[in-house]
Amino acid sequence: MSDSDFKYTVLSGGVGGAKLVLGLHKILAPEQLSVVVNTGDDFEHLGLPICPDIDTLIYTLAGTVNPTTGWGLNNESWYFMEALKQLGGATWFSLGDRDLATHIRRRDLLVKGQTLSEATLTLLREFHVHTPIIPMSNTPVRTKIKTNSETLDFQDYFVRLKAEPAVTEIIYAGNDQAAGSPDALAALQANKLGAIILTPSNPWLSIDPILSLSDIKSTITNSTVPVVGISPIVSGKAIKGPTAKLMRELGMDVSAYSIAEHYKGILDGLIIDQQDADQCDAIRALGLQVSTTNTIMNSLDDKKALAEFTLAFARQIHTGNMDSSS
Amino acid sequence: MSDSDFKYTVLSGGVGGAKLVLGLHKILAPEQLSVVVNTGDDFEHLGLPICPDIDTLIYTLAGTVNPTTGWGLNNESWYFMEALKQLGGATWFSLGDRDLATHIRRRDLLVKGQTLSEATLTLLREFHVHTPIIPMSNTPVRTKIKTNSETLDFQDYFVRLKAEPAVTEIIYAGNDQAAGSPDALAALQANKLGAIILTPSNPWLSIDPILSLSDIKSTITNSTVPVVGISPIVSGKAIKGPTAKLMRELGMDVSAYSIAEHYKGILDGLIIDQQDADQCDAIRALGLQVSTTNTIMNSLDDKKALAEFTLAFARQIHTGNMDSSS
Repeated sequence: MSDSDFKYTVLSGGVGGAKLVLGLHKILAPEQLSVVVNTGDDFEHLGLPICPDIDTLIYTLAGTVNPTTGWGLNNESWYFMEALKQLGGATWFSLGDRDLATHIRRRDLLVKGQTLSEATLTLLREFHVHTPIIPMSNTPVRTKIKTNSETLDFQDYFVRLKAEPAVTEIIYAGNDQAAGSPDALAALQANKLGAIILTPSNPWLSIDPILSLSDIKSTITNSTVPVVGISPIVSGKAIKGPTAKLMRELGMDVSAYSIAEHYKGILDGLIIDQQDADQCDAIRALGLQVSTTNTIMNSLDDKKALAEFTLAFARQIHTGNMDSSS
Repeated sequence: MSDSDFKYTVLSGGVGGAKLVLGLHKILAPEQLSVVVNTGDDFEHLGLPICPDIDTLIYTLAGTVNPTTGWGLNNESWYFMEALKQLGGATWFSLGDRDLATHIRRRDLLVKGQTLSEATLTLLREFHVHTPIIPMSNTPVRTKIKTNSETLDFQDYFVRLKAEPAVTEIIYAGNDQAAGSPDALAALQANKLGAIILTPSNPWLSIDPILSLSDIKSTITNSTVPVVGISPIVSGKAIKGPTAKLMRELGMDVSAYSIAEHYKGILDGLIIDQQDADQCDAIRALGLQVSTTNTIMNSLDDKKALAEFTLAFARQIHTGNMDSSS
């Protein structure tokens, strides 16, 4: 089977994951790539269904994302937000004039009876993106952040409070009643699947909500294809966002090893940054295969290089599996 | 009682009525003027509660209305609408970026439990307008347009179809279950009320929806204060909009006399344009008092002059009533 026959299904959150997804998108044909996306960050705001991670992926693959922030639209205007501020409306969550159209359009599609999966496919078509972006579930699952004093809605914690409160526990409300979306489960069991890839999104805030769905998790753990991940921790620091702070608050060492430990039982192999090569043996001792490269994705070339490296690593695990089973 | 002690309650639709309301607003103190507004044009669009006539009045009195159209905001931008168009969303009803904030804000206030009256007062405060703009009802009443072949929602007829279909009948759906808003009824029965004024809005599309509420109508017909109106028909033509076309379709002569005939039993007096002075006797024969002046309001001075004239006409009717009852 040639390389171009394989399909790859990726689990992703927003900004961090979207970098690798863009790299894969650039080196694979549209029919080779499916992206299962965290919807634990979704919320209704000002009457609009907001899906931050889905939109970040759509905008990234459409080439219309704001390159500075990694989320929202490029060349965005903020006249709505200014007017709402003058009226005393809630402005803690930024909604650009063009971005609003996405939320209003999604609302309209959902009201007309489309599932979130269907509405996302419609939006993808309207943004001329051919890679399927698949919500993890068509049922709401909502990430909630527990602190010593209260339980916060995710966006309250993440955006309004700038991820400042110390986290004691994270829950994925509704996950026990929710099923994985049929499209997500199908993508994880596709014919000619070459690998399942966990992007270097925040494991607790972006990937675990997806894995909190028992059918998705068991489909992954029962899969015979390589499951590979990339550590979001490099040299004891997070590439971006609150991952390192969160790990400390949850009592972990901020290290690639901790990521390996967290994903033990899910991953066959973990890619860690070359700066963390000294942790390879310890990670192998957990039963994971490990490989090192540059995992910091600043340029598009970095993204494509890490995507290529990830596919090669998966192939290598696949071949190893074949060898050991033969 | 001096002139400045009197209060005036005005019935108004959107653009046409707002011209006279602005004139009254400029010559009266805020506590002297209340405006009861047609909500028959209101509709939910893209999940937003749109109140075209209320917003036209708010924007007009706030000095932020688009002076060219008479509706919408001045210096508006349309980035949302452009983006929605690219996504294939409904763009037949124009929603500017800043205008959207008004609808989103109203939705939020309604969701939080405010009545439409309360939400409108909140918006007025946020727009720094001190004149009460009062929805005719807190319950939906929806103007529907019957044609030979179908029944159209008002905005479908008025905006999407540009008022082109021939009208056979107009209904005010829900009017038999709806009550006038408490604030509207209070304004029509205020102490020291000097007059009830029907603006030269379209009688069938803007004023009749208000009069279709039985408690509002009986409060007006039972009122002892002068009820005066201004004809929207001048020299056989409508100043603006589909009034003349509609009158023809409903089988009427397009004349100030027809307006007088329509409002017989409601009005004590009608102001008609000086160009229609030849109709005064016929109108008096209907039992209405009548007076002529320039009723075409192009400039702010025109608006103030017609407002002054209207108040003087009401005073004259009031004095006449006093004389005849003494």
